[in-house]
Amino acid sequence: MATLDDVLSTIDANQGAALERLFALIEIPSISAIPAHFPDCDRAADWLVRELAALGFEASRVDTPGRPMVLGSAKAKTRDAPTLLFYGHYDVQPADPLDLWKTPPFAPRLETGPEGERIVGRGAADDKGQLMTFVEACRAFRENGGLPCNINVLFEGEEETGSPSLPAFLTQYAKALKADLLLVCDTSMWDAKTPAITTMLRGLVLEEVVLRGPKRDLHSGLYGGAAINPIRVLSRILADLYDPNGAVTLPGFYDGVEELPEEIAAQWRDLNFDEAAFLGEVGLSVPAGEKGRSALEMIWSRPTCDVNGIVGGYTGEGTKTVLPAVASAKVSFRLVGKQNPERIAQAFRAFVKARLPADVKAEFLSHGASPAIVLPTRSEALRRARRALEAEWGKPPVLVGSGGSIPIVGAFKRELGMDSLMVGFGLDDDAIHSPNEKYERTSFHKGARSWARILAALGQ
Amino acid sequence: MATLDDVLSTIDANQGAALERLFALIEIPSISAIPAHFPDCDRAADWLVRELAALGFEASRVDTPGRPMVLGSAKAKTRDAPTLLFYGHYDVQPADPLDLWKTPPFAPRLETGPEGERIVGRGAADDKGQLMTFVEACRAFRENGGLPCNINVLFEGEEETGSPSLPAFLTQYAKALKADLLLVCDTSMWDAKTPAITTMLRGLVLEEVVLRGPKRDLHSGLYGGAAINPIRVLSRILADLYDPNGAVTLPGFYDGVEELPEEIAAQWRDLNFDEAAFLGEVGLSVPAGEKGRSALEMIWSRPTCDVNGIVGGYTGEGTKTVLPAVASAKVSFRLVGKQNPERIAQAFRAFVKARLPADVKAEFLSHGASPAIVLPTRSEALRRARRALEAEWGKPPVLVGSGGSIPIVGAFKRELGMDSLMVGFGLDDDAIHSPNEKYERTSFHKGARSWARILAALGQ
Repeated sequence: MATLDDVLSTIDANQGAALERLFALIEIPSISAIPAHFPDCDRAADWLVRELAALGFEASRVDTPGRPMVLGSAKAKTRDAPTLLFYGHYDVQPADPLDLWKTPPFAPRLETGPEGERIVGRGAADDKGQLMTFVEACRAFRENGGLPCNINVLFEGEEETGSPSLPAFLTQYAKALKADLLLVCDTSMWDAKTPAITTMLRGLVLEEVVLRGPKRDLHSGLYGGAAINPIRVLSRILADLYDPNGAVTLPGFYDGVEELPEEIAAQWRDLNFDEAAFLGEVGLSVPAGEKGRSALEMIWSRPTCDVNGIVGGYTGEGTKTVLPAVASAKVSFRLVGKQNPERIAQAFRAFVKARLPADVKAEFLSHGASPAIVLPTRSEALRRARRALEAEWGKPPVLVGSGGSIPIVGAFKRELGMDSLMVGFGLDDDAIHSPNEKYERTSFHKGARSWARILAALGQ
Repeated sequence: MATLDDVLSTIDANQGAALERLFALIEIPSISAIPAHFPDCDRAADWLVRELAALGFEASRVDTPGRPMVLGSAKAKTRDAPTLLFYGHYDVQPADPLDLWKTPPFAPRLETGPEGERIVGRGAADDKGQLMTFVEACRAFRENGGLPCNINVLFEGEEETGSPSLPAFLTQYAKALKADLLLVCDTSMWDAKTPAITTMLRGLVLEEVVLRGPKRDLHSGLYGGAAINPIRVLSRILADLYDPNGAVTLPGFYDGVEELPEEIAAQWRDLNFDEAAFLGEVGLSVPAGEKGRSALEMIWSRPTCDVNGIVGGYTGEGTKTVLPAVASAKVSFRLVGKQNPERIAQAFRAFVKARLPADVKAEFLSHGASPAIVLPTRSEALRRARRALEAEWGKPPVLVGSGGSIPIVGAFKRELGMDSLMVGFGLDDDAIHSPNEKYERTSFHKGARSWARILAALGQ
């Protein structure tokens, strides 16, 4: 009978073919935020259905009011094996600004970096490379006698746009999705040599505000001074969102935010996080958030408010002496602890409305809202996963927080009472959501090996 | 010998052909702010050279480091006639947002409005329709024995971008351009029935600021809280430009701004300016400038600061949880009285620099700077022009200020000591710089007749 070593050897032997498969997936520009790319999202979903079917999964595409879900299901080789649900997402962020990409974002390629070969392309790390680590692990078990656990798979196509179709889908497919544990591969390592398991995730509220003043763009000479300028109003409102110490001024914003338990705070201090290197890598030197907090707290355990985009008036080359009719901003909040997403969205809207002068109207768009997640750190599954990762990487994984949001984790906890195991192989410099996104070839290869070890450990 | 009535009859008889000529000029998309349209600016200049030559002018295109100038010169039929220089500009504003145009901006057409037929198209009013009123008046004189004055013509192609090439050109061509009076047709009537002569013009400072923070766009989950966001910094700076009473906070900004002389203030009060209608026409109800000032003061005799454009981060459909590397704004100042443009540009830059936190750098671009103009209101030329306009329109013209800038007027005063006569036939609802720009057919027709009367009066 095949052993775990056989499975790992199969992964090692299949590296070239695995890379080709990942390239094929990256080549599909499945950008969920841009309607012109909705057909590409469909194509990515169909591609994954075919991949899973080829591995012997019962696989299907399930259409939703948004982008389709991909469902897959395969039985373990033994009875009484636990059932695991693996989650990943096939949608990617928009690729702009395109001119900053060294090569086209959807033409994946290998290049050599400080950690060895790396896979470059939009979605290489987030999340196509990561989800394929799991698929490749399953493939290796199939070629060595079968899976050690019952595996269900859910690939989503709206993760980058706040997962609007997910809650209704979970309710409808609760039975098919129910499992002993949710596995998620959308997080990072501590560093290139040290694996990590993520046990805290920030929530996310995505709001867009559109301010309208004059009924058309005006000549700033003929009307300037007398006509209200929506950019001026918007600037004031956005500036007011922060106090001089970097705290967010929305009334009630910090309700439900608790100080870190001393145990965790101590563990984080022991990480000797290199703030200077973390910021220096992106050209910064000073943590810009709340005064008196460490950078690690700012990105893992403190809530934030950020303006992700702003536009109004003439933005082309040169000048246009226009007084614009419209200005808009996309504002997002990262949540922690027990902050209530709906209440924060409402507080933001009230905050804007309270600051509108005569003749300016606000419209609001919600692009999603999800609460923060804090997972138990002493379960049997976590213990086994830690040992499996230690066996692969030669050192134990650290338990970390993550600044990003993974709405699925909260949704499964809320809807199905399921806990999650979040293991991922991204690195901080992967430039996800940025030009020249990459995924280390080592992450891809040892990621698949790590999942093989984790599945074997959980199936025992 | 032909009389003024003969000239006016010729204008009346030639209306159809005059309209065809104007349409041909509007069809050339001579947008001076957009490099892709530079060849169109050349085409518009060449078209005007041909038009002037056909009227018997000595005409030529003079290239500059920017867009070309058009120069024309024609002698009066009598000796000892005064020499006039007419100025207009052939460049136009960008046409965006294109989707708000009912028909393509560079496919001019007639439509029927409340005041009768109107010419719709980018540049119909600003300034192609206006400059052609003068050309058509010259044509009518030519067909009736000759011009009553020596006429020089200067058509510029950079008015909409702050006239960067003009100062050096004026120095170089001072002799050819020297005249007894500068005529400018780039201003408005008081209303559709009442002509106006503009004697006050605001100056203009055009600045662009680009703020750079992180060296690339970042994931707002992974970095949000710890990394500085240039949009947040820019919002704060722009908000700080105004105090709660709507006054501009730049140190020294109001140096050189004087209260209106009581004589002029009284005249303006007598105009019974309908603030509600002026603002209501563009969907507004309350003057948004300095508290305690009338809307007419705000647009004619008070300085302003406006943000003409802002952009940063993701501005497409949907969302992208990005923390942007760059945010920028185009900021303009309208100047009055003796405000010093260079000092105000410097004050703005110092204001921005003083508010930059660690890790944010500012770059500045100047798009032009010109001081305000206040012209004498009791000259013989002005007296004759007033009577000529009264004869055409049946009521005397009002002496007004203008919120817009016409850099040539200041440049001629400064470089050549020449005063200007600013007469134009635009209306407040012409939507210049906006979608669906129009010029009343009556403005075009009676504008040409008005110039015929003014030339006859000045030539006597």
